[in-house]
Amino acid sequence: MPDVGACLWVVPGGHIPFPSNGPEPEFTGFDQLCVLNTTDRRADVELHIYYEDAEPVGPYALPVDARRVRHVRLNDLIDPEAVRLDRPYGALLRSPVPVVVQFLRQDTRLPGVVALAATMAYPA
Amino acid sequence: MPDVGACLWVVPGGHIPFPSNGPEPEFTGFDQLCVLNTTDRRADVELHIYYEDAEPVGPYALPVDARRVRHVRLNDLIDPEAVRLDRPYGALLRSPVPVVVQFLRQDTRLPGVVALAATMAYPA
Amino acid sequence: MPDVGACLWVVPGGHIPFPSNGPEPEFTGFDQLCVLNTTDRRADVELHIYYEDAEPVGPYALPVDARRVRHVRLNDLIDPEAVRLDRPYGALLRSPVPVVVQFLRQDTRLPGVVALAATMAYPA
Amino acid sequence: MPDVGACLWVVPGGHIPFPSNGPEPEFTGFDQLCVLNTTDRRADVELHIYYEDAEPVGPYALPVDARRVRHVRLNDLIDPEAVRLDRPYGALLRSPVPVVVQFLRQDTRLPGVVALAATMAYPA
Repeated sequence: MPDVGACLWVVPGGHIPFPSNGPEPEFTGFDQLCVLNTTDRRADVELHIYYEDAEPVGPYALPVDARRVRHVRLNDLIDPEAVRLDRPYGALLRSPVPVVVQFLRQDTRLPGVVALAATMAYPA
Repeated sequence: MPDVGACLWVVPGGHIPFPSNGPEPEFTGFDQLCVLNTTDRRADVELHIYYEDAEPVGPYALPVDARRVRHVRLNDLIDPEAVRLDRPYGALLRSPVPVVVQFLRQDTRLPGVVALAATMAYPA
Repeated sequence: MPDVGACLWVVPGGHIPFPSNGPEPEFTGFDQLCVLNTTDRRADVELHIYYEDAEPVGPYALPVDARRVRHVRLNDLIDPEAVRLDRPYGALLRSPVPVVVQFLRQDTRLPGVVALAATMAYPA
Repeated sequence: MPDVGACLWVVPGGHIPFPSNGPEPEFTGFDQLCVLNTTDRRADVELHIYYEDAEPVGPYALPVDARRVRHVRLNDLIDPEAVRLDRPYGALLRSPVPVVVQFLRQDTRLPGVVALAATMAYPA
């Protein structure tokens, strides 16, 4: 299989929805980064989070094995610190090997309603 | 008409919603790949599916006739094996002629609610 | 202002939702092409529609004046023929001057629910 | 950190949803531009708004500090004039330093329902 993608990806529109309604974890509101590594090498992806009123935080380590996909909920990241809920942020991912990154939001702030939004991240 | 597109396309954020609510097939939850072939040659598109914890599966054959569009629900693919429901995956499409690929999700896990998400696939 | 964009744009994932619920026209289901012409020349955009099982139809004339945006509901096109409801299609737009094209779907098939999906079109 | 992005971004599909339902400001309907500035210089972003039947309006000043993200609701812009509600528009952003721009819509026109749509803006 070919090496596909880029080594630098950006998502400016992060904002983890809060609160959530419905059974966890499938209806928990989230922002998600979906990383596909088609190469034969492990991708030690590093994530940095940018805020409106504070210095960037990172790196968050997001390793993706060779020939694997990984879907990471931003809500689940805790090291070096939790990504703040209900607050605007941007994400920058760097990978030593080419990967492809997509962004997905699930919003369940209203009972009995699911809203989705998706976009490919921006490759640099 | 011009030849338009690329021969390699990637969607990292696959996850077929499950279960579904509402009349089938129009309200069945799905992930969909929409492939447009504007060329005058048949596009014998091949799809590979990447998982989080298993080797990639494929090729799935997705032929698209000359000057035709084809919308394929991932749920409907069974050869070489069904794409697994409610599980993260990524998709890689290869075509011998240029095509354009878009991704669409329809989520009907909650009764009386439809959620949609769409993005152009990433061209390599 | 600069000339921005491309002269060829593609949307593979067309499918006008049917039926609709709610007051017309604001809650009528639609697929929409949003074309921005930042140049100082009129853009005589031409649209062709591709189907799964029939030859492409077009051109549909979609002129966009200099320094203007135009949002066109595919449902409203009737010349050379109406775009078929509830049926997969793809769209190809050609412009003599650079423009930028975005795709938006509004789905109101279920009473009391709106679903949206958006993506930038693919520039060739 | 690297300089990432482009200096010219376009969103053709603007249309601020109106009216809104639910508590303000979190459920107010909006169109939003999300701008990430990873550089070490302040980005004095300028926005121009294009309409269907009037000359473009701008510039709107949207400064984004170094290493910061900024999410701007189009509804909140008032200088040089308010962006018109419930009316098609397109947006063009220019920045003296590279930035990345994403578009997000939240639609709460129906009580008890949230619809989202997102796409990366088009980089020129």
